[in-house]
Amino acid sequence: MTRVAACQISLNIENPAENIARADKAIADAISQGAQIIVLPELTNSGYAFTSVSEVQERSTTLDGDIVEKWKKIASVNDVVIVAGLALSVDSRLYNASVIIDKTGLLGWYAKVHLFGEEHQFFKSGDKPPLVVNTAHGRIATMVCYDVEFPEWVCLAMLDRAALLAVPTNWPNLGQLIHGTPMEAVRVQAAASVNKMVAVAADRSGSERGHSWVSSSVITDYEGNISAIAHRDSQADVQVLVADVDLPTDTSITPKNDVRKDRQPDLYNGILKY
Amino acid sequence: MTRVAACQISLNIENPAENIARADKAIADAISQGAQIIVLPELTNSGYAFTSVSEVQERSTTLDGDIVEKWKKIASVNDVVIVAGLALSVDSRLYNASVIIDKTGLLGWYAKVHLFGEEHQFFKSGDKPPLVVNTAHGRIATMVCYDVEFPEWVCLAMLDRAALLAVPTNWPNLGQLIHGTPMEAVRVQAAASVNKMVAVAADRSGSERGHSWVSSSVITDYEGNISAIAHRDSQADVQVLVADVDLPTDTSITPKNDVRKDRQPDLYNGILKY
Repeated sequence: MTRVAACQISLNIENPAENIARADKAIADAISQGAQIIVLPELTNSGYAFTSVSEVQERSTTLDGDIVEKWKKIASVNDVVIVAGLALSVDSRLYNASVIIDKTGLLGWYAKVHLFGEEHQFFKSGDKPPLVVNTAHGRIATMVCYDVEFPEWVCLAMLDRAALLAVPTNWPNLGQLIHGTPMEAVRVQAAASVNKMVAVAADRSGSERGHSWVSSSVITDYEGNISAIAHRDSQADVQVLVADVDLPTDTSITPKNDVRKDRQPDLYNGILKY
Repeated sequence: MTRVAACQISLNIENPAENIARADKAIADAISQGAQIIVLPELTNSGYAFTSVSEVQERSTTLDGDIVEKWKKIASVNDVVIVAGLALSVDSRLYNASVIIDKTGLLGWYAKVHLFGEEHQFFKSGDKPPLVVNTAHGRIATMVCYDVEFPEWVCLAMLDRAALLAVPTNWPNLGQLIHGTPMEAVRVQAAASVNKMVAVAADRSGSERGHSWVSSSVITDYEGNISAIAHRDSQADVQVLVADVDLPTDTSITPKNDVRKDRQPDLYNGILKY
């Protein structure tokens, strides 16, 4: 059994220092609850509603910057895995990124591939597959927000034998119909279910320059059942969901079926031709 | 607006004639409610729990058999589309198939590719992509049951510009956790949502040789929201769900995003190498 946490934080582009303070508070809260894997939202350091590239630059961090250094220490002292979305500057290029850190340090970073809305104006899109790494608490994949709506992308994480998919996200409230489980969380459930992976999606809250958010962080087991989901109406600046989940050890779903082995990749070739 | 129906029928392998009588009753009910597209379960003519190939043979039909001929007449007289799962014999081979019929006749048939459980013992697996055809009521794709758990397969239907995905199914109750919306329906919601297609899944009911079923037929709109879902506790032999849905005319989801155009197929190539 592994204890996982999704940290739903109120972010605001106007106050980057406060964003990180809230992230630190959420990490501390998750640790105090015994969480071993802690997931933070997309663009935790910056907020989302940029109006210029310089706004991104001013709020971005680097792989050897203060934020990652601090989280490496926290991960080391507490033996936790931290997965966090960050506005990241690498070789003078800006990425909507996710980092995975454990007690041994920074294990890797990933740049969002499927950019949403205006993001092309502010970020270079990634060109690498979902990051999948062995951590002190299991084999973990990460991708960012809209990436998870592309099932072929999620499938890559399963094929690379991830046991848990960590998704930093900022799910925009675009006036979509929401009754019962929001579709954003439904898609995460299905991603977990069809790939036999635990899924942890950390969304955000907090209105920002007229934008609002679904605020529906969710943790599912590897069958896609919801283990914990955020209270959407809570306006708490920090809301930490915690759940105990079993990480899968294989991709079988019945004695005769396996979501990996039952694939028919030769027949999927055609998919690339459209 | 298009009126669609999912017909949830109690099937029993011991009484094939009664299975078809119930299907006909469901079709008549759907027509009386004004449905234009009518979806029936997987293996409507046979039931599911075979113990020998000869049991499949005895219950199978052919593309020019009585069942298809009758449904062609019904479709012609009433201007409806019928999509139905059938145990089908073609060139002396047995398939777990789906047929699409409209007022002009039989538009095509599809053989289930991803076989579940013991099905390999009884059926030859298909080797063709999801069937996608223009009908009198829109461009319709079909695949069968477990196929829909392979997102790359569902994506093929979207890429071939289907507006509606019709899924004949027999969702087995294997003791999986079911609270709220069953995961079988959640996966259909996500399939609809990430591909911007209406989805109609027709499940079955009726205990059969010790097997039972999720009995959770579902109709979703093209955003994945549930338009209608079966009452799982109903043991009605015929339960017809009807909903009015808009068929999508494109794959855009926001002014700047499109589930088809935002794909990065060059990066998905790797998927085939695992």
